[in-house]
Amino acid sequence: MRRICVDMDEVMADTLAEFLRRYNETFNEGVTPDDLSGKGLWEIAPLDRQQQLRAFLDAEDFFENLDLMPGAQEVLKDLAPRFEIFIATQAMFVPNSLGPKYRWLQRHFPFIPPTHYVFCGDKSVLRADFLIDDQPRNLLRFEGQGLLYTAPHNVTATGFVRVDNWQDVAEYFSRIDA
Amino acid sequence: MRRICVDMDEVMADTLAEFLRRYNETFNEGVTPDDLSGKGLWEIAPLDRQQQLRAFLDAEDFFENLDLMPGAQEVLKDLAPRFEIFIATQAMFVPNSLGPKYRWLQRHFPFIPPTHYVFCGDKSVLRADFLIDDQPRNLLRFEGQGLLYTAPHNVTATGFVRVDNWQDVAEYFSRIDA
Repeated sequence: MRRICVDMDEVMADTLAEFLRRYNETFNEGVTPDDLSGKGLWEIAPLDRQQQLRAFLDAEDFFENLDLMPGAQEVLKDLAPRFEIFIATQAMFVPNSLGPKYRWLQRHFPFIPPTHYVFCGDKSVLRADFLIDDQPRNLLRFEGQGLLYTAPHNVTATGFVRVDNWQDVAEYFSRIDA
Repeated sequence: MRRICVDMDEVMADTLAEFLRRYNETFNEGVTPDDLSGKGLWEIAPLDRQQQLRAFLDAEDFFENLDLMPGAQEVLKDLAPRFEIFIATQAMFVPNSLGPKYRWLQRHFPFIPPTHYVFCGDKSVLRADFLIDDQPRNLLRFEGQGLLYTAPHNVTATGFVRVDNWQDVAEYFSRIDA
């Protein structure tokens, strides 16, 4: 059975929505995902707000209640009998996210066993056939087939097999032997 | 640069010592590592104590202050310039261990960056050249070269390349090209 590793932030979970919500509320701004074409919030926020950006992520509750990306549950449930699904999330920059991420996965993806969670940093350590990730740098270090999950910050990245949404993920794997 | 994954419990940290300390204190027993030749504490403890064994591990402070295995710091520090060192620990059965394990690693192994921590369950997901682990089942699922780190519970396991202590680890890798 072939193995798919799936990133959490901005692939399974709408981390950006929560990040923007806190940013806009705190600074009385109206930044939308469309304003972030090819850039991260870190790049458009003024220097004197960088520390606060970090503080948003460090908050104990930031990762606790993120919205699901549409279709993530349904498509992963459909793929689970045909592929080994592992979750591979960068959690080591924000150690406060470890517990919340674990609980979020258990709540929303009860059909994926905790033995298939991987909380890591450098994703070159993953042994898998596929990695679905929104970060080009993670895919470049991965030795299997990478799929770039489209997010505002990566729309200008080229040279990747790209999936725009979970419907695209379903279609891609419908053509792949398990 | 070749990559070594290192397990934490009973390889870097003396988890068994803390487990026995809590067991003996709670049940007024005097179990020593020598009593566990080829067996885990789970196997020699009476059935009506199994729930308490689990509760020891679930305690918020269990993994916070484990003793170091002798030589672990020194040998890993010596290997770090020649090999990529990753920490690969099963943390998903005991989610309360995630934060304490992170802090323990930062405190005792500041020369290993958090991007090289991997908190996982099934270790077949690791892409590395070597894995040092005390659990035969982890080594059987690993695709690189496994090294069985001797612990009371695994003394009867056969068919593995074995290291009895960190001095053995240093000697093994002194003969390996990085």
